[in-house]
Amino acid sequence: MHKSQHGNRTKAVLILSGGVDSTTLLYKLLDDGHEVHALTFDYAQRHKKEIDCARKIASLLGVPHSVVDLSPLADLLGDSALLSRREVPSCHYTEEAARQTIVPNRNMIMLSVAAGYAEAHQIPEIYYAAHRNDCTIYPDCRSEFVEALKPAIRLATAWHPVELRAPFVNLTKAEIVKLGLQLKVPYALTWSCYRGEEVPCHACPTCIEREEAFALCGAEDPLVSR
Amino acid sequence: MHKSQHGNRTKAVLILSGGVDSTTLLYKLLDDGHEVHALTFDYAQRHKKEIDCARKIASLLGVPHSVVDLSPLADLLGDSALLSRREVPSCHYTEEAARQTIVPNRNMIMLSVAAGYAEAHQIPEIYYAAHRNDCTIYPDCRSEFVEALKPAIRLATAWHPVELRAPFVNLTKAEIVKLGLQLKVPYALTWSCYRGEEVPCHACPTCIEREEAFALCGAEDPLVSR
Repeated sequence: MHKSQHGNRTKAVLILSGGVDSTTLLYKLLDDGHEVHALTFDYAQRHKKEIDCARKIASLLGVPHSVVDLSPLADLLGDSALLSRREVPSCHYTEEAARQTIVPNRNMIMLSVAAGYAEAHQIPEIYYAAHRNDCTIYPDCRSEFVEALKPAIRLATAWHPVELRAPFVNLTKAEIVKLGLQLKVPYALTWSCYRGEEVPCHACPTCIEREEAFALCGAEDPLVSR
Repeated sequence: MHKSQHGNRTKAVLILSGGVDSTTLLYKLLDDGHEVHALTFDYAQRHKKEIDCARKIASLLGVPHSVVDLSPLADLLGDSALLSRREVPSCHYTEEAARQTIVPNRNMIMLSVAAGYAEAHQIPEIYYAAHRNDCTIYPDCRSEFVEALKPAIRLATAWHPVELRAPFVNLTKAEIVKLGLQLKVPYALTWSCYRGEEVPCHACPTCIEREEAFALCGAEDPLVSR
């Protein structure tokens, strides 16, 4: 188990997608001694495979885990390539390609639900794994968004205040993978590819970003090399 | 129709519950010349009757309207009396009674979805009808929450920035009813009672608040007197 014996046992809610970043954060929180409740969101994403990955990882670690069905929102949130309406772009991690994968306000919606869950269960902290690579394209992964949302969440949950934390917000994906390799995160169990087919496509923005991160660590991605 | 002929036609998203406050705000926005898209949230509230009221009001006014199914969240958000788990309190509008009706972070969840909808449809403003009476009990109705959430929403929707507006936040419910009577809001079509039975119970916190508001205006509530 990835838990230190001497850390405090602060309860924490984590948004766990089943991908590299949030899985690494789960291992980091457990290693720091937190008791983690994981929430995974089904927003009708094309790559539902990541939800099964989140289930397997939470189960492996014995972490309480809920899959939150937000699929009714898909019709409201427009035509993101992640919501099965148009092709996932095949190209490098450019702004043009990545912008097609924006789901409007996705992170604030998930964080709002996580904050409500935390308040209902009197859990003082919520975590998500926004990181520096995401911030160019996804406004709700930027540190200024995180800093702006913190007081709003605190005020909204005033009867049992909840604190938002995004400890990876200034890390690159390569730095996250480096940390995860130290923590022995079983990356073969994670999923990233937006296409969600049998094996990663090696062509969509998130596949390319994942491959680059492992390459920068001088490591092989066990999902690809197995 | 409650539309001025000379107002601008700024598009706006409104969270419409089907109750007194949001229905009055709908009439106000139309009177000010806005083109309104209304969103009503099904969060498995006991008083589902308000959703039908919202449908009828939106239909009467020819306003585009979506009912957003967030009922899967009910299991996550604890044991609020509004989520059919325990009795709605029968007493005056006291803190003790009203606190039982809190649904943790409900307004931030609804506003996050509304902001995502607005960004997806390039609508620049979202409105909700938080007001001064609510602010004692419901933290997510307070002006400091509104002011804190505004920049977070702006930053999260940076590609098509969305502005949060809560024009009733410093009005009492009686002042809202006074405005609504001037705008000829058909209050017989609205619903407030948390119990959601055939007729209002006259005992739950929101019934008592509604009755007081009409009394302070020297008016009869057409829902009660018809």
